Amino acid sequence: MAKFATIEAVLIADDPSTFVTRELDKLDLRFGGIEGDRHFGVTAKADSRQPMYPRGTEIMNRRQLSIVSVEELQGIAERLGVAEIKPEWLGANIVVSGVPELTKLPVGIRIMLPSGGGLVCEGENEPCTGPGKQIANHYGNKELTHQFVKLAQKMRGIVAYVERPGELKVGDQVEIQI
Amino acid sequence: MAKFATIEAVLIADDPSTFVTRELDKLDLRFGGIEGDRHFGVTAKADSRQPMYPRGTEIMNRRQLSIVSVEELQGIAERLGVAEIKPEWLGANIVVSGVPELTKLPVGIRIMLPSGGGLVCEGENEPCTGPGKQIANHYGNKELTHQFVKLAQKMRGIVAYVERPGELKVGDQVEIQI
Repeated sequence: MAKFATIEAVLIADDPSTFVTRELDKLDLRFGGIEGDRHFGVTAKADSRQPMYPRGTEIMNRRQLSIVSVEELQGIAERLGVAEIKPEWLGANIVVSGVPELTKLPVGIRIMLPSGGGLVCEGENEPCTGPGKQIANHYGNKELTHQFVKLAQKMRGIVAYVERPGELKVGDQVEIQI
Repeated sequence: MAKFATIEAVLIADDPSTFVTRELDKLDLRFGGIEGDRHFGVTAKADSRQPMYPRGTEIMNRRQLSIVSVEELQGIAERLGVAEIKPEWLGANIVVSGVPELTKLPVGIRIMLPSGGGLVCEGENEPCTGPGKQIANHYGNKELTHQFVKLAQKMRGIVAYVERPGELKVGDQVEIQI
């Protein structure tokens, strides 16, 4: 696992009608994540990702940010036989390079930002049909929805939360503290 | 690793002059931990446990609760050659039985309470001199301070935070979701 990663893109999901993200130049990361993003909040409502709690229960938000790697997105594209997988189709907030096996990063590991902020890895973001449909729509091939869910396992990136607020911008080098 | 544990004691550190805890019948666990306890807070100030942040920086509080196991406390006592190690000397908030290797519980694992509440394991609570001094004072043997720091490694329990609030009382069975 690489110790350093480069920030290739930062994105926000601020259109209430979709989880699809759009690129920004920088993120102002706060306790709870990215203000205005659909996943912002120190707490969040439990959903199908937390079946041990009744749906809608208020719990600590361990899924504030979605982080993907250029290398793994390319790997998913190759598995699906398509030219590319855009991070916005997956609702990614942060795109890194230099970490070919980002999705294997253990839960609890810190990602330190040059601004002094810090993120905590909450482990694999398991692929679901939402992003799969985005890919299928783009390439006009319905089969890709379920192929994504199956073939993007262990490659779809991680979720994380903000441990200490700080700015993050394109071009930043972040340190992964294994 | 056992899947279920029994709550043997619950304790609070509500005397500002010490980290030593005292027993209660039950805990009302909230976001942030135990109200009135010295470690209560959704956020906390970084200290020597988080050397990657400047001391005093406000960060998410991943160390709200200290959990120890009866079996490991007995193991530490045997290593130190003393009759017992009381959980309050370690500032423990929760004492469980039925989990001989509690300290090895991975970061991120959930501990589900019968009230519906949930805790998240934040990994080993590394032994330091504070509890060592309590033990040394009790047994009138100064050597025990540093022996504790050395010999209680991997046996001193874990820290955790509250993911979903709920009550926890003596006699409860909790489920460890490996």
